[in-house]
Amino acid sequence: MGDRIYVDNSATTPVSESALSAMLPYFREHFGNPSAIYSYGQEAKKALEDSRRVVGNAIGGLSNEIYFTSGGTESDNWAIHSVCEVKHKKGKHIIATAIEHKAILRPLEKLRDLGYGITLLKPDTNGHISSEQLERAIRPDTILISIMMANNVMGTVLPIQALCEVAHKHGIIFHTDAVQAAAHIPIDVRSLSIDLLSLSAHKFHGPKGVGALFSKIPLVPSPFITGGGQEKGRRSGTENVAAVVGMAAAIAEGSENLHHNTQYLGVLRDKLIERTLKIPGAYLTGDPVNRLPGHASFVFEGVKHSVYIINMLNEAGICAGSGSACSASSTEAPHVLSAMGYADELAQSALRISLSHYNTEKDIDSINETLPRIITEVRKRKDTPLG
Amino acid sequence: MGDRIYVDNSATTPVSESALSAMLPYFREHFGNPSAIYSYGQEAKKALEDSRRVVGNAIGGLSNEIYFTSGGTESDNWAIHSVCEVKHKKGKHIIATAIEHKAILRPLEKLRDLGYGITLLKPDTNGHISSEQLERAIRPDTILISIMMANNVMGTVLPIQALCEVAHKHGIIFHTDAVQAAAHIPIDVRSLSIDLLSLSAHKFHGPKGVGALFSKIPLVPSPFITGGGQEKGRRSGTENVAAVVGMAAAIAEGSENLHHNTQYLGVLRDKLIERTLKIPGAYLTGDPVNRLPGHASFVFEGVKHSVYIINMLNEAGICAGSGSACSASSTEAPHVLSAMGYADELAQSALRISLSHYNTEKDIDSINETLPRIITEVRKRKDTPLG
Repeated sequence: MGDRIYVDNSATTPVSESALSAMLPYFREHFGNPSAIYSYGQEAKKALEDSRRVVGNAIGGLSNEIYFTSGGTESDNWAIHSVCEVKHKKGKHIIATAIEHKAILRPLEKLRDLGYGITLLKPDTNGHISSEQLERAIRPDTILISIMMANNVMGTVLPIQALCEVAHKHGIIFHTDAVQAAAHIPIDVRSLSIDLLSLSAHKFHGPKGVGALFSKIPLVPSPFITGGGQEKGRRSGTENVAAVVGMAAAIAEGSENLHHNTQYLGVLRDKLIERTLKIPGAYLTGDPVNRLPGHASFVFEGVKHSVYIINMLNEAGICAGSGSACSASSTEAPHVLSAMGYADELAQSALRISLSHYNTEKDIDSINETLPRIITEVRKRKDTPLG
Repeated sequence: MGDRIYVDNSATTPVSESALSAMLPYFREHFGNPSAIYSYGQEAKKALEDSRRVVGNAIGGLSNEIYFTSGGTESDNWAIHSVCEVKHKKGKHIIATAIEHKAILRPLEKLRDLGYGITLLKPDTNGHISSEQLERAIRPDTILISIMMANNVMGTVLPIQALCEVAHKHGIIFHTDAVQAAAHIPIDVRSLSIDLLSLSAHKFHGPKGVGALFSKIPLVPSPFITGGGQEKGRRSGTENVAAVVGMAAAIAEGSENLHHNTQYLGVLRDKLIERTLKIPGAYLTGDPVNRLPGHASFVFEGVKHSVYIINMLNEAGICAGSGSACSASSTEAPHVLSAMGYADELAQSALRISLSHYNTEKDIDSINETLPRIITEVRKRKDTPLG
């Protein structure tokens, strides 16, 4: 973090100072294996269990409903794997949305090849899924409904509580990918009545390589990674103590400052959106109101590809994304915008500016000054980038 | 790392100073998502690819034969999963040994339930598997042979080259779990002709939560964790850049000092073994010669359970293990020693002292003074610990 303006916080975030400080003693001082019974092991075990309580608290869950993983992708894969194992006698139909992260869509494609029925709901123009739409998709053999809490590409916060109620009315397990939502909007798994929920630490100023799966008691996840039987026999592999401690510190900090950050980011975001929409042929994607506090996403008529915008912004010292980190280097139109009915040409022009509390009003002013000029420039280009 | 003597380095190790220094800039300064095309992303991408080359070099492999994972357990799980996917048309028989880590044994148990034939070879009294023994187990439908390079419980270094030759004579893929071996003994995947190899960073003074799977070109692993398509589409999830950088620094340091450490640790280990075997009814487990440089493992007649030894050592400021970190708190006899024919009573008395180059001659003297007294003490106990 130097002179550059970083506004791709939905892709990843820098580790906060307090999270890093919390982690440091666990690399060399308290480095023990939590499974060991001697002092070094027990120190590590205590840090692990304290962190589990903190992460549970942050989402309204219990300590023993939290299972640490290597990140959001593993948590998503695991949730699907687990429900398939646990419910294999009930059926082979799963409902998700067409705007899920690929950590959900790829495992579902694999299951489709194995004979599962997969229904992917298409959202409305704001990125929402309605209760009626979900209700209509349910079949007697539906075993899982997986719908994300907030979308990474266009920032919409989905009506999870209502969707979860529909699932439970039919006795179906409900999973939500809360990777973009956690520590950004309030989450209370009890009041929402969620069964399974995925978290990723590096989306809220924790370290990369660590996440968690929340699994509501008495639902116990069937193991995905197996071996030494860590995490109460549910997720094997030596526990990543330092990273888990960092995750707990980061989610605690994020939750504590959530109200303040929401206000602060909302003002910056709205200023950015207001100004950007003054560019002719610029459109906001996603819900204008029910969206992540720091998330602004756009498409631009007459722009051949967002890569041009992102490269020119980078040259101007501004790091922004196209909507999904994984597709930044691809020429494929973001699947999310395509699923929402955007024409490929428009979908390919997608720009995502995702803020954190590290951003300042000066950053927004700088983007607001730079972006109109860049859009004008890139509209002159008639070529398309090679994939 | 303070006044206490830590000699359970086969369970986990503290991160080395140089590995931690290498990691630190990647938490807050160079924190970008390697998939992003702007400067922060490209810095992270470069660090990732530099690390891949370093890890490849350390085992005689190529950069593009290395896939980063969340650790040894995931690597082991993935290797098995991948071969089952790739070779499902050839057959459903897998050969491993009864002394593999549970990260191999558990997935194999699962496969057995799914109809796979699983043959677990039993080692001789030194922990070895012979080429003839392996040859006899091979069937026309054998798709994978997985044999560890060095055993965690009793330190034996197995004759991998000869076993690998047998596998290849029959056109069978050979995987080795090198979690205990890497950076402790020389590994050259080319001269050994290994197809798949698992690594875990925290066993050689790298961080927890990161490992790698080596997959010899042209063998390409079938994905286990799926989503955004990182690691050339083979292992999804935002890359754990800081940890990967730490892993590379640690394996480079370990490889560079391998010769020196082997000499140094060998002297300490042999002094420890010599003195411990003077305790009446004490026996070395594993191969007295072909064993890991810093690894000493024993069983003791008349000791009801190793937990007593480990607790008393801990009270004396010495942190040692029972053979497998995961079973340290369990009263189950280590499966490795049982597989080698040790009676349960003797297997339950297993003590493992695994050294690192941080240990000194003074540490060994201290253990040598303390252990005989403790063994005498614990032999007086007639109860057994609760599981």
